[in-house]
Amino acid sequence: MNSFGKLFRVSIFGESHGVSVGIVIDGCPPGIPLVVEDFAEQLARRKSGAKGTTPRQEADHPKIMSGVFNNFTTGAPLTILFENTNTRSHDYSQFRDVPRPGHADFVSMQKFKGFDDYRGGGHFSGRLTLGLVAAGVVARKVINPISVDSKILEVGGSSNIDKAIDEAVEKGDSIGGIIECTATGIPIGLGEPFFDSVEAMLSQMVFSIPAVKGIEFGSGFGAAKMKGSEHNDWFVEKTGKTATNFAGGINGGITNGNDVVFRIAVKPTSSTHTVQQTLNFKTGEIIDFEVEGRHDTCIALRVPPVLEAATAIVLADLMLVNRKY
Amino acid sequence: MNSFGKLFRVSIFGESHGVSVGIVIDGCPPGIPLVVEDFAEQLARRKSGAKGTTPRQEADHPKIMSGVFNNFTTGAPLTILFENTNTRSHDYSQFRDVPRPGHADFVSMQKFKGFDDYRGGGHFSGRLTLGLVAAGVVARKVINPISVDSKILEVGGSSNIDKAIDEAVEKGDSIGGIIECTATGIPIGLGEPFFDSVEAMLSQMVFSIPAVKGIEFGSGFGAAKMKGSEHNDWFVEKTGKTATNFAGGINGGITNGNDVVFRIAVKPTSSTHTVQQTLNFKTGEIIDFEVEGRHDTCIALRVPPVLEAATAIVLADLMLVNRKY
Amino acid sequence: MNSFGKLFRVSIFGESHGVSVGIVIDGCPPGIPLVVEDFAEQLARRKSGAKGTTPRQEADHPKIMSGVFNNFTTGAPLTILFENTNTRSHDYSQFRDVPRPGHADFVSMQKFKGFDDYRGGGHFSGRLTLGLVAAGVVARKVINPISVDSKILEVGGSSNIDKAIDEAVEKGDSIGGIIECTATGIPIGLGEPFFDSVEAMLSQMVFSIPAVKGIEFGSGFGAAKMKGSEHNDWFVEKTGKTATNFAGGINGGITNGNDVVFRIAVKPTSSTHTVQQTLNFKTGEIIDFEVEGRHDTCIALRVPPVLEAATAIVLADLMLVNRKY
Amino acid sequence: MNSFGKLFRVSIFGESHGVSVGIVIDGCPPGIPLVVEDFAEQLARRKSGAKGTTPRQEADHPKIMSGVFNNFTTGAPLTILFENTNTRSHDYSQFRDVPRPGHADFVSMQKFKGFDDYRGGGHFSGRLTLGLVAAGVVARKVINPISVDSKILEVGGSSNIDKAIDEAVEKGDSIGGIIECTATGIPIGLGEPFFDSVEAMLSQMVFSIPAVKGIEFGSGFGAAKMKGSEHNDWFVEKTGKTATNFAGGINGGITNGNDVVFRIAVKPTSSTHTVQQTLNFKTGEIIDFEVEGRHDTCIALRVPPVLEAATAIVLADLMLVNRKY
Repeated sequence: MNSFGKLFRVSIFGESHGVSVGIVIDGCPPGIPLVVEDFAEQLARRKSGAKGTTPRQEADHPKIMSGVFNNFTTGAPLTILFENTNTRSHDYSQFRDVPRPGHADFVSMQKFKGFDDYRGGGHFSGRLTLGLVAAGVVARKVINPISVDSKILEVGGSSNIDKAIDEAVEKGDSIGGIIECTATGIPIGLGEPFFDSVEAMLSQMVFSIPAVKGIEFGSGFGAAKMKGSEHNDWFVEKTGKTATNFAGGINGGITNGNDVVFRIAVKPTSSTHTVQQTLNFKTGEIIDFEVEGRHDTCIALRVPPVLEAATAIVLADLMLVNRKY
Repeated sequence: MNSFGKLFRVSIFGESHGVSVGIVIDGCPPGIPLVVEDFAEQLARRKSGAKGTTPRQEADHPKIMSGVFNNFTTGAPLTILFENTNTRSHDYSQFRDVPRPGHADFVSMQKFKGFDDYRGGGHFSGRLTLGLVAAGVVARKVINPISVDSKILEVGGSSNIDKAIDEAVEKGDSIGGIIECTATGIPIGLGEPFFDSVEAMLSQMVFSIPAVKGIEFGSGFGAAKMKGSEHNDWFVEKTGKTATNFAGGINGGITNGNDVVFRIAVKPTSSTHTVQQTLNFKTGEIIDFEVEGRHDTCIALRVPPVLEAATAIVLADLMLVNRKY
Repeated sequence: MNSFGKLFRVSIFGESHGVSVGIVIDGCPPGIPLVVEDFAEQLARRKSGAKGTTPRQEADHPKIMSGVFNNFTTGAPLTILFENTNTRSHDYSQFRDVPRPGHADFVSMQKFKGFDDYRGGGHFSGRLTLGLVAAGVVARKVINPISVDSKILEVGGSSNIDKAIDEAVEKGDSIGGIIECTATGIPIGLGEPFFDSVEAMLSQMVFSIPAVKGIEFGSGFGAAKMKGSEHNDWFVEKTGKTATNFAGGINGGITNGNDVVFRIAVKPTSSTHTVQQTLNFKTGEIIDFEVEGRHDTCIALRVPPVLEAATAIVLADLMLVNRKY
Repeated sequence: MNSFGKLFRVSIFGESHGVSVGIVIDGCPPGIPLVVEDFAEQLARRKSGAKGTTPRQEADHPKIMSGVFNNFTTGAPLTILFENTNTRSHDYSQFRDVPRPGHADFVSMQKFKGFDDYRGGGHFSGRLTLGLVAAGVVARKVINPISVDSKILEVGGSSNIDKAIDEAVEKGDSIGGIIECTATGIPIGLGEPFFDSVEAMLSQMVFSIPAVKGIEFGSGFGAAKMKGSEHNDWFVEKTGKTATNFAGGINGGITNGNDVVFRIAVKPTSSTHTVQQTLNFKTGEIIDFEVEGRHDTCIALRVPPVLEAATAIVLADLMLVNRKY
């Protein structure tokens, strides 16, 4: 389904070239100051236009449709809507016979019996992350003073990100990347054992971001090469502060008061300017295939504000649930 | 909380040194043949005793407490219980003042206000995975003919697993590992967009397994170093079969009919025979610390049956939900 | 929270005098024909204007914001929005000091710490039922050929409904009523034992309709005066048809194939033209109090389309869940 | 499914003549004193044996299987188990061909494809309420100082309960009854608008109790005969105390600080000593039918402890959720 959270619950909706995309936040506490201008900064971060991102510009005007009164959240469901204004569609119907490799075209058509809105990725479009980013703005206010930040560690295997982008643009190919997210100021005790552990909740949410292929906490996959004597974070303060943070701030699924740290892998954009082969499902022939138009060279560049928003949403839910203790 | 699933829903309970551990499976379809002997094979796989695992032997006798009649599931909640017979406790109370680094001792005590059952890891113990393994046996029957297998790719950074274990045992240290899980025979269309995607559900569940630090699907973290022209899996058959499987069998969160493939990173066992430093929270002093007793040198060796069970449980839920279409 | 359902899940939002009210339907199967005109009939039934209802006319123009493409549902979340056009507010701020008896003014202010949108009942307004009615239109299509109907059995204690309304209008007072709802064409086996029984699901949903004070199935409260020998519905056909239907079509929480029949009690409208006493919370004085404006004499008259919609929504969810068997 | 609650979540399991019945309570706060003796009083109230109840005595020995350590709840799932010791089965297989009118025999067989445990009502048996009563004991501790009480208002249509029972026993027939439940000491603000309103949650839970046919809050069905000027509860104190309590302590789905009051209708026991007609599904003939053995003349007599437990469970969940505000 398209909802996440127990007490701070987001429900996402919309299609890339439909009428709108948006999100409903159910369970947001009352009394949080919120005006439409509050969304501008994070939406601008998410916007395309920088080097390595598509020059295709979308209008991202959030409208608060419910849940705010006199510039404060009311406690009732908060709805944020983005109407799609620039939806002149290319002819996407070609992708019915020749579903794009790496995209959701094929599975969407199959799962929804051919009734899916296939224009521009439809419900699977990255444009849906507008709702996440908007909800993240609210979530950050809920979890204040916890702060959530992220940085791109590498793209295309290189930490010289500027150079890697230039090279990829030149080749007309796309590249992936790795992003690290850190949440600071975390109280001890968030999360539950087992299925609602902090890792479980964060990973469930993070895989909702298109193009994410992996997630690792603290030492992550590096842990598989470490020895126990190296890996254990020994305590240095009664606050729970540890000398190292291989645990990524989480033991037994529960925050230990140190920074929560995790990294995600983002695949290269599926649409590239290179010619690929694939199947024409109608004719049964293998054909040459190229996706026209302008694409993000490195979609990872646009992920940080979405990733931080996703993280803030999870933490908001965990914080509210934790008040029961 | 300690439940997972929408229509095939597992609820886990128990403590390592308490009266019992077990699981309730709610929503299991009626008419599945099930006798207590069916659990033996997977429980034996999970058991310790092989090289690199603790020689400490636990009695794992499952009892079916509800939900089975005349050797078939009834459709009512299915409860499987393991009574803890060998629970002579060491003196675990020392870990109240000196919580073990890398364990849940500290967070458990904090979150549950000092009322947690701290003996042997309590509710955070790996012994809780008995319930998962048992539920996995049932889940495999539900998803038949889908099969789920896994293999250990490396331990301690080496694919020569036998040798790596020998070396670690000799040093009295512990090592981590990487395990790959593959589900074969998957229908097209399992999973939902966004928060109930296949990756989201699998990762939520998999992080419930103690010691897991990361998960990656298909190309995973390797995708971050790839180019789009390499990464796209082009279709070769109308069945949806692709030439490569960098997607790990999932596009847009939904299965595409190819094998679902993912890997997890398992950290080295926290308890080792090496001397570590840590804080005595009572005295405020940094002390030398060694965990007595026998430990798994490489807990990753015992993870495969648990990982497969976890995967089968998720797939069982996804399969039942998918029947609505 | 403001969501209901497992697989056909509605999320309601909005305020009476805010920007909009609406509903998101998550999990609606793809391929259901749906155009905006489909909502007209049920929205018209809900509309005020007839004798005994307020002459205050609201504009109820549904907009489909997501989830429909080429006049069919896509399977992605379906959002229906009603913008509030006529929201010139009276001065509702007087109700902060003098919360209206029988209304949610007091609890809303308390629960939401004074941040609630109190204009016209805000989130507690009957206007929110627009979303339910719209979702009911979709749900009816999902459960087809099951049909859901209702009739007003009595108002103000009289089955001469016309006369009772006339008398109440004359007195300037409001009256309650009893409504019976019947679902026909129900398959055997909907519902689950215990907490997701048909009665449990229907009653949870039905109490979401403002002004409902009670619900009874089949024989209902009359059962308390009956003998077992009278009350048992004996089977007359292998289809499960029974000679009587005191069970209301439900045994053990599960549909038995007979009509599902239940009745609800609707209280008299809280706002009347009579002078009442109540507390001025600011001054601490008991004052005379009269709610100005035009009110429904008998809100029960407007409940049937809402009740039927609510019932259809529950049945749609139960039907989809039942496909797992 | 067989679970209820958001943060204080109960999962019920078991069959009347199977191995056991029981309940898992997930989310119970840590630090609540609990020993096995605490259950005795409420289990004794539920037990049969008094006039009008079956003399068939069951052994009700609760075992705490998890979640308690050193006589306090740990915060981990709390499991309470009742092993069925006296399960010599009558020959229940006769009810496969001739499902008992008024019982779940028919729907259970149909829904679960003939795999249901049909002995003694199986999963639909009133014996399952043992788990509810046990969870209620814990819930009462969670909601302390809120108190929950109930009383039988009438049986067989008479408030002279003793006499009505005598008459029914003499006739060999069964009778129904009406029970009122009152919760005192309720804080303002429990419950949520719409689907998680106090009425919605209580009614969902209460219809899980076998034989309940209706529920009404405050004025209930009587409201349908009242005038608005009579029905409104005007405020008399700044605490929210009202002069009357027709609202049953709830406005807009949210507690207003006055007592929560509701009544339920309980049908007469389906099994009676009178001869009834019904269908033999195998032969297709209408036959005379009598249920042998000893039955409760008035099952309503045994409902109060179950009803109070159910109410306490709901309030415990509402209280924990409300801590988010």
